[in-house]
Amino acid sequence: RYGEAEREDLVGVTTGLAWTEVGGELLSIEAVIMPGKGQVTLTGQLGDVMKESVQAARSFVRSRAVTYGIKPTLFEKRDIHVHVPEGATPKDGPSAGVAMCTSIVSSMTGIAVRRDIAMTGEITLRGRVLPIGGLKEKLLAALRGGLTTVLIPKDNEKDLAEIPDNVKRGLTIVPVSHADEVLERALVSRLIPIDWTEPDEEGGPGPGPAPEGSKEGDADVLTH
Amino acid sequence: RYGEAEREDLVGVTTGLAWTEVGGELLSIEAVIMPGKGQVTLTGQLGDVMKESVQAARSFVRSRAVTYGIKPTLFEKRDIHVHVPEGATPKDGPSAGVAMCTSIVSSMTGIAVRRDIAMTGEITLRGRVLPIGGLKEKLLAALRGGLTTVLIPKDNEKDLAEIPDNVKRGLTIVPVSHADEVLERALVSRLIPIDWTEPDEEGGPGPGPAPEGSKEGDADVLTH
Amino acid sequence: RYGEAEREDLVGVTTGLAWTEVGGELLSIEAVIMPGKGQVTLTGQLGDVMKESVQAARSFVRSRAVTYGIKPTLFEKRDIHVHVPEGATPKDGPSAGVAMCTSIVSSMTGIAVRRDIAMTGEITLRGRVLPIGGLKEKLLAALRGGLTTVLIPKDNEKDLAEIPDNVKRGLTIVPVSHADEVLERALVSRLIPIDWTEPDEEGGPGPGPAPEGSKEGDADVLTH
Amino acid sequence: RYGEAEREDLVGVTTGLAWTEVGGELLSIEAVIMPGKGQVTLTGQLGDVMKESVQAARSFVRSRAVTYGIKPTLFEKRDIHVHVPEGATPKDGPSAGVAMCTSIVSSMTGIAVRRDIAMTGEITLRGRVLPIGGLKEKLLAALRGGLTTVLIPKDNEKDLAEIPDNVKRGLTIVPVSHADEVLERALVSRLIPIDWTEPDEEGGPGPGPAPEGSKEGDADVLTH
Amino acid sequence: RYGEAEREDLVGVTTGLAWTEVGGELLSIEAVIMPGKGQVTLTGQLGDVMKESVQAARSFVRSRAVTYGIKPTLFEKRDIHVHVPEGATPKDGPSAGVAMCTSIVSSMTGIAVRRDIAMTGEITLRGRVLPIGGLKEKLLAALRGGLTTVLIPKDNEKDLAEIPDNVKRGLTIVPVSHADEVLERALVSRLIPIDWTEPDEEGGPGPGPAPEGSKEGDADVLTH
Amino acid sequence: RYGEAEREDLVGVTTGLAWTEVGGELLSIEAVIMPGKGQVTLTGQLGDVMKESVQAARSFVRSRAVTYGIKPTLFEKRDIHVHVPEGATPKDGPSAGVAMCTSIVSSMTGIAVRRDIAMTGEITLRGRVLPIGGLKEKLLAALRGGLTTVLIPKDNEKDLAEIPDNVKRGLTIVPVSHADEVLERALVSRLIPIDWTEPDEEGGPGPGPAPEGSKEGDADVLTH
Ligand SMILES: [Ca+2]
Ligand SMILES: [Ca+2]
Ligand SMILES: [Ca+2]
Ligand SMILES: [Ca+2]
Ligand SMILES: [Ca+2]
Ligand SMILES: [Ca+2]
Ligand SMILES: [Ca+2]
Ligand SMILES: [Ca+2]
Ligand SMILES: [Ca+2]
Ligand SMILES: [Ca+2]
Ligand SMILES: [Ca+2]
Ligand SMILES: [Ca+2]
Repeated sequence: RYGEAEREDLVGVTTGLAWTEVGGELLSIEAVIMPGKGQVTLTGQLGDVMKESVQAARSFVRSRAVTYGIKPTLFEKRDIHVHVPEGATPKDGPSAGVAMCTSIVSSMTGIAVRRDIAMTGEITLRGRVLPIGGLKEKLLAALRGGLTTVLIPKDNEKDLAEIPDNVKRGLTIVPVSHADEVLERALVSRLIPIDWTEPDEEGGPGPGPAPEGSKEGDADVLTH
Repeated sequence: RYGEAEREDLVGVTTGLAWTEVGGELLSIEAVIMPGKGQVTLTGQLGDVMKESVQAARSFVRSRAVTYGIKPTLFEKRDIHVHVPEGATPKDGPSAGVAMCTSIVSSMTGIAVRRDIAMTGEITLRGRVLPIGGLKEKLLAALRGGLTTVLIPKDNEKDLAEIPDNVKRGLTIVPVSHADEVLERALVSRLIPIDWTEPDEEGGPGPGPAPEGSKEGDADVLTH
Repeated sequence: RYGEAEREDLVGVTTGLAWTEVGGELLSIEAVIMPGKGQVTLTGQLGDVMKESVQAARSFVRSRAVTYGIKPTLFEKRDIHVHVPEGATPKDGPSAGVAMCTSIVSSMTGIAVRRDIAMTGEITLRGRVLPIGGLKEKLLAALRGGLTTVLIPKDNEKDLAEIPDNVKRGLTIVPVSHADEVLERALVSRLIPIDWTEPDEEGGPGPGPAPEGSKEGDADVLTH
Repeated sequence: RYGEAEREDLVGVTTGLAWTEVGGELLSIEAVIMPGKGQVTLTGQLGDVMKESVQAARSFVRSRAVTYGIKPTLFEKRDIHVHVPEGATPKDGPSAGVAMCTSIVSSMTGIAVRRDIAMTGEITLRGRVLPIGGLKEKLLAALRGGLTTVLIPKDNEKDLAEIPDNVKRGLTIVPVSHADEVLERALVSRLIPIDWTEPDEEGGPGPGPAPEGSKEGDADVLTH
Repeated sequence: RYGEAEREDLVGVTTGLAWTEVGGELLSIEAVIMPGKGQVTLTGQLGDVMKESVQAARSFVRSRAVTYGIKPTLFEKRDIHVHVPEGATPKDGPSAGVAMCTSIVSSMTGIAVRRDIAMTGEITLRGRVLPIGGLKEKLLAALRGGLTTVLIPKDNEKDLAEIPDNVKRGLTIVPVSHADEVLERALVSRLIPIDWTEPDEEGGPGPGPAPEGSKEGDADVLTH
Repeated sequence: RYGEAEREDLVGVTTGLAWTEVGGELLSIEAVIMPGKGQVTLTGQLGDVMKESVQAARSFVRSRAVTYGIKPTLFEKRDIHVHVPEGATPKDGPSAGVAMCTSIVSSMTGIAVRRDIAMTGEITLRGRVLPIGGLKEKLLAALRGGLTTVLIPKDNEKDLAEIPDNVKRGLTIVPVSHADEVLERALVSRLIPIDWTEPDEEGGPGPGPAPEGSKEGDADVLTH
């Protein structure tokens, strides 16, 4: 049933968390790739902040492609479509960034996303995870929907004090500060870096910045 | 006469169901392909939700191309035009998704759509069928229009309790949860998967996720 | 004089019929093709419904190209411009669809349109002719303008009861249900199908659906 | 001085006539071609009706290219810019069509436009000249500006009765019904048709319709 | 300091003059070219009249390229960016046309613009200089900003009667009627025409009209 | 924590300063390059003045590419994405220009930006640094955020009189007038010019103007 945890680990499908004035909800972030020319399609009545959020997630993944085991040229040989059902419901905001990032990496690598994990957090162009609002409502939605683990921004850790104990007991809540930690936990198998050199280009700098915070060691796991 | 069942099985034409405050109506979803470069044209005064719905249906089909017997490169060598008469009537909403999907597959494979079937249901990027509104009005319109079978979303099965008995007696109502079931019932012959490997590309993941729910066995057929 | 029947049979020029609250009017639907790359230009202050109507007419013709004796690749090697004078008068609605279709086929084949025929009718993507409004005003305009034959949608046949006898006596009124009938009557010579196979593509379905209703025999000719 | 007749015959510059509630005015229609890829640029705060008017004029010329001595491929190898000073004054309406056509042909052929001629008239896609408004004000502006000949639409001939005698005495007024007549009178030398066959294309119809009215003999010249 | 005369002769930078209700101001018109594909970028919160003005200036320069010593193909191999600081201040109107033209020619040829010259005037597609408003305020701004020479449109010469004597004494005011005169005075060295023939094209007219007024001899220099 | 100084020197990340009515704030200007075709993506709810500001910064860098050690063709072989978190907060204005410029150069060269430097200033197309508003609030934000050095426009030097002494004591404030000075101070290592000649192009001027003010010697360092 739509709005609950998936029944199996799926490629390209991540459970995000939305928050409206009437409560939290599960968002199914769907990404699919197709042979193509690098075109990006975004549907599901996404507002411009959410559309920009997908673009930032995609550029982050592109700039980190080899580390994540994706041939950089694959971005030019595949079209990607990101859709968020239900199609008639407007959605906006930056807090689905980490879920967008996860669905994109999953669809590009073919590695499935764990069905029992939900996540929330804005993502920056270098993979930092920024804090979000509505933590309590989102955690409640995750619990109701049958999820068991929720990744939240490290900067929201302080808000856990206000979360009811039964919610904290029912969920494994993992604060994260970088996309690397998100992917390590959310994908069913490890990303294997590849060697890659641009065919007809010598010199020039590598494709992107070293990710900040990616070597800070494992995230803490809070289980209440 | 327009607004009634077709007189023959047609390629690229599926009967959808619309719902307005003055009742239900048949929608003739027309898809036609032409030698081209992958351009998509959508006409019939379609609102943006319905346009996104066609895009999602098309991407789903592209990602499942080989399973449905369509060479993936055909999407780049054909233009597709989806039109919904009557041309002056604005239409919107996601519930024609499964009909869009059916017309696209029919036009790409050349397999006709059964003329006695109508259908309603939102489609996701991985082929899930999501529930819709106005079930009663839509079933009445199908009955009036001379259709004999209606595919409805599995999640709308619970709403059948409120449908008058004469409607349920007059129609074969089939709850479906995935596009695979829709195509199996709506097309006049079976889709035959093809073998296909991308010519100049080795490695990389396949073109899309395994469809969720596609192996759940046959849909139940409710005949009242 | 503009607003009257043409003085000779012209390639690419069809007389359509418009209807406003102050009465009916002749519309001169002009199409011209030029060596190019498949670009479509629409001018004459056309509203979006009428623009979509041209697109549907063009896609229908493209999908039926070989039957109409047009090499499908010609659509990619010719630009087409459809213009409806007078340039400052806004025009909208789907009822010029069959005239658009006729002008496009005429310009693509070089076969002239009969100067004494006017026509009205929405066209679908598979060539069906759908009913229109303002039949009486349109017929009066045709009579005033010196036309002798008017093609009308089969589904408007019932409205002929309300048309004054002098109008019905002065015009040959032909109900049609498919574009094939329109082209057979409106062009000065017959369309000759061609053989054509896509050069570097094998397999795949043909370029479009079999047209519905195209084999239903000749349309009835009503002469009052 | 701007707003008066040119001092020499110029390539690509035609004097049009505008009409506002405060009187008539000269419009300098400037066209210039440059090595390029067929791009069209329109400037001078042109409204959409006037922009469409330029497009119609250009397509008419393209469809008649060989008759006017222009290699059809030149349209794809030249960019064209049409500008109407003064840059800050909004301009709209279809009545500069024949002047647009003349400037385009002049710039494409390199044949100058006669400096003593002004013109007004809507142009259709097949070169017909349609009637315009504000004839009196336009003729007055031409007289004031030092022009000696004015081309007007044949369908406006009836309006000459209301024009003051001194205006009719001061100007040679030439009613025209087709662009061929306009070009014959406005250009300083004759257009010489060329032979041309599309290099890699055989069959298919010629590039456009035979122009209506182009063989009706010379226009009458009214001198009062 | 921004808003004053430059300290050295710069390539691609011309001092224009703006006029608002609170007085005149210097505008620094910056043009820069980069290896590219002929893309044009316009920034500085330019209104659409000013944007069209840049387009007209650029097309004029393109059509006169060989006369100004610029290989016509360079326009397709260079991107050009025109920017007018300050970035947050909206600017509009056609009167910076001659300055736009000068910055473009300077950036395309690498010949610097004289730092002590300011200019104002609308430019047409054939290089005519049309009159502008706010002459007094503009001259005052030039004087305040430390400029010594100001080029003004010939058609504004009559307005010099109303300019205070001290302003006329402090500035060399040069009325000009064509862009050729502007470039001759504003650039630090002479433009040397080049020979050029389009590589793979024979026949066809040259790239543009002969400029009107360009052979009228030197402009008068008014020094008061 | 977001809104404070970075913990390490990062490639492509510069700390800018924003100013709203409720005070100053740090802006993290993120730029990342990816193998591509020269596409530019701007996200973070940037207003049109800020978007133009990025364009001006990028064109300035392109025009100075060889001086900064960047192969000019790299701009056509890399896509660049500039993002400014937080994604839901609208941002506008030209004063992040120098930070945009620094992030672009850093990402194109792979040279990191010093983590202890913040900067503010509009940039022109030739690299001039123009004055900004809100200096006091911006300096306070820099101090609060843990930055140690702030680059400000030379033309804002006069405003330092109004800055509290404790702020001036806590920060090294460096007035700058050209982007060269900004880059020299903000990057962790020196930019090394390269030799470069356009492969298939001879003649034509170099890619851009000599930067004004770039040889004026070192900027003064004010330490209070
Ligand atoms: Ca928004
Ligand atoms: Ca819901
Ligand atoms: Ca909408
Ligand atoms: Ca209806
Ligand atoms: Ca509309
Ligand atoms: Ca009329
Ligand atoms: Ca308009
Ligand atoms: Ca005027
Ligand atoms: Ca405007
Ligand atoms: Ca200022
Ligand atoms: Ca704005
Ligand atoms: Ca904040």
